[in-house]
Amino acid sequence: MRARDLVADYPVVTLDTPVLEAARLLAEQDLPGLIVRGDEGLTILPGTEALRLAVPRYIMDDPALARVVDEAHADKFLRALGGRPVREALPGERRDLPVTDPDATVVELAALMARTRSPLVAIVESGELIGAVTLQALLDRMLGT
Amino acid sequence: MRARDLVADYPVVTLDTPVLEAARLLAEQDLPGLIVRGDEGLTILPGTEALRLAVPRYIMDDPALARVVDEAHADKFLRALGGRPVREALPGERRDLPVTDPDATVVELAALMARTRSPLVAIVESGELIGAVTLQALLDRMLGT
Repeated sequence: MRARDLVADYPVVTLDTPVLEAARLLAEQDLPGLIVRGDEGLTILPGTEALRLAVPRYIMDDPALARVVDEAHADKFLRALGGRPVREALPGERRDLPVTDPDATVVELAALMARTRSPLVAIVESGELIGAVTLQALLDRMLGT
Repeated sequence: MRARDLVADYPVVTLDTPVLEAARLLAEQDLPGLIVRGDEGLTILPGTEALRLAVPRYIMDDPALARVVDEAHADKFLRALGGRPVREALPGERRDLPVTDPDATVVELAALMARTRSPLVAIVESGELIGAVTLQALLDRMLGT
């Protein structure tokens, strides 16, 4: 059993993809994060980072303030998020996506996820991204669930 | 729309739950992490932390070494994980689970997840954990997917 047997298609966004579109991909496909193709290689956009753009700073600092914000305002935040690009949502501290090739073993994939604390490993063959292995797929395989 | 409308049952483990059992819960229910009831309140066990126990340190430091480890060894690691408790898998840096009550608004939940970078918020009513709201459920609601 190698990475090639566990790899699945995985959506890739660019730095210019609107965050709202990225959030829709996360929600519809139930993903732990998105792969971002940037100027310096592949990074990961965790779902919680996309939220950071949608929530005004003063509310993020004091979530209880939101208790008095009504639903109409929630929609306003989302509209404000509108066309802002993924570039603005990436964590300040750049988080590299672990990458390996299709011959990686199950133990190698587990070690990569454990070391980088990433629930996602990108699989690259001859310089081409062919998909990703998720923690979910790996656990299913390791535990036979 | 309040937290009470988005909350769902969520599995809770204790510090003494075997990690293998916790990993099975993660895999079977496709969860971003588990809620751990500890001595000092609720914490979160991210899926990647459970893996850290299953992978020997020398392989975690050099995943390429695993290329020469065959499948039989992968099963050995899992067996070694066996009955080790969740207590041993928790990150050294304790990660508090964000907690709120059933009246929290959608914006408040988003702010909590954004601030703590947790894809999970525990919902507590009168001191009792009644479940959790996931990033997935929140995005589905915010985006109407």
